Amino acid sequence: MSDKKSYKTVAIIGGGLIGTSLSLSIKKNNLCDVIKVYDSNIQVRKKLKERLSPNEIYESLEETVFDADLVVLCIPVGSMKEVAKSISKLLKDGCILTDTGSTKNSVIKDVKPYISQNIWFIPSHPLAGTENSGPEAGFPELFKGKYWVIVPYYSIPNEVMDNFSKFLSGSGAITEIMKPEYHDKILAITSHLPHLIAYTIVGTATDLEDQTKYDVVRFSATGFRDFTRIASSDPIMWRDVFLNNKGAVLEMLQRFTEDLTYLQRAIRWAEGDKLEDLFTKTREIRRSIIKEGQDK
Amino acid sequence: MSDKKSYKTVAIIGGGLIGTSLSLSIKKNNLCDVIKVYDSNIQVRKKLKERLSPNEIYESLEETVFDADLVVLCIPVGSMKEVAKSISKLLKDGCILTDTGSTKNSVIKDVKPYISQNIWFIPSHPLAGTENSGPEAGFPELFKGKYWVIVPYYSIPNEVMDNFSKFLSGSGAITEIMKPEYHDKILAITSHLPHLIAYTIVGTATDLEDQTKYDVVRFSATGFRDFTRIASSDPIMWRDVFLNNKGAVLEMLQRFTEDLTYLQRAIRWAEGDKLEDLFTKTREIRRSIIKEGQDK
Repeated sequence: MSDKKSYKTVAIIGGGLIGTSLSLSIKKNNLCDVIKVYDSNIQVRKKLKERLSPNEIYESLEETVFDADLVVLCIPVGSMKEVAKSISKLLKDGCILTDTGSTKNSVIKDVKPYISQNIWFIPSHPLAGTENSGPEAGFPELFKGKYWVIVPYYSIPNEVMDNFSKFLSGSGAITEIMKPEYHDKILAITSHLPHLIAYTIVGTATDLEDQTKYDVVRFSATGFRDFTRIASSDPIMWRDVFLNNKGAVLEMLQRFTEDLTYLQRAIRWAEGDKLEDLFTKTREIRRSIIKEGQDK
Repeated sequence: MSDKKSYKTVAIIGGGLIGTSLSLSIKKNNLCDVIKVYDSNIQVRKKLKERLSPNEIYESLEETVFDADLVVLCIPVGSMKEVAKSISKLLKDGCILTDTGSTKNSVIKDVKPYISQNIWFIPSHPLAGTENSGPEAGFPELFKGKYWVIVPYYSIPNEVMDNFSKFLSGSGAITEIMKPEYHDKILAITSHLPHLIAYTIVGTATDLEDQTKYDVVRFSATGFRDFTRIASSDPIMWRDVFLNNKGAVLEMLQRFTEDLTYLQRAIRWAEGDKLEDLFTKTREIRRSIIKEGQDK
């Protein structure tokens, strides 16, 4: 094990967009000596063998996590509990367990009961992704320049944290420490609500009569298209996100609905000043994003 | 006047993103002999003189439309009535008058009363734009490969229509004929509702407490950012759009709200199958858009 590597053996559970991208990034950046990748689906494993080396793909959870120094759960948040239960007794002493789920309170609640004292469970969440899913969609640069949120919800020794951060930084990510509640709130407004709204409006269009629907597709370049991209994200992953961040999502949704109703009323009563005021205010946020370099 | 040109003299009223882009495109593609551009704002005229030739920029509507074969109103839809009234007596016999407004029923209602029988009023709408506005934002390729909808709401001779279509095609646009009601309905779902929703969610985020708002900006790459781009579009233009396509926007908004309420209830009651069904269905629309080549 070289001095530069945080871990000797890394096990990736789940070969979707995130798991495949992380595996490719680990190999490209030489972040460990041995990488072991597992997926429960035989078709996914077949594709993984084309993206990685066939001998890096495992058929059983037991073999995958055996002797691993770091185990990364790259699975939908709805599956965390079951997988944590399955692997908890198989992890070696001192093993670091992390996940990449989009909700953090629920993952902690689901995984924590199965983690013994000699394992360091450090939840995390890479704020990276595309609308594409599956092993074909993975690429090693996915995390480059993106935030990777770490959620150490209990006291973890500095050297354990530093080593884990160093590993994540090795993929090009910028690490950021956050409390689980705050993570779930920030993600509810920046990611979960936008996805829910995009899914809704594309669904609304889907229910239009055939000719209209066809023309909506043809003339989609006028705003709608951006929503369809977001609304083509992985259905299972997103179903689980909404079910597992219910509180924060429903709260943000309530605020959004109030604000939308206010605008709806302004349109109905032709109150142009109210519309103009809001439309002017929202430009500022865009300027802040450009200023923070988060616009690409 | 060359055989290839549809019009000798073209007058552009309004030097924003659309008016400037059209002027630059006309010059680049050599679509007329004389171009005359007007804007009521002295600062805009100053900037236009840098983007075009100073002698092409006019200070009065009267001088601008004098002797024009084609007059294009590139102004917010809320200003159409006033400008139509001002120029109606100044247009020469046989002049073509068009507009580039995002709503068509309202523009016809506002402009029609002022148009004398020797003028051909042919409303139109280029489905092209960016979130940037003003003369600095204009560029000659804006219309390239984009649809330009023509809305001839009464009988117009073929040669007049053909000549007008040829002119628009000269800018690289793909012309498409539509009825005003249908245009307003399609645009309500593909453009107006997406903009309203984007403005709303960015507004909702703007009202969060300061630290949260700052982090929303930092972690915006997860979906929210796409909405901020849309929500930084020109406030006056969009205020006018909503006030002038009230019927179609409110109808689509009603459908959208029903669909969102359905999903909200599914989240509250943890009905994962309902979420998954919709999220799977919405992927199809994205695939259709990619198939139609409208994804870039």
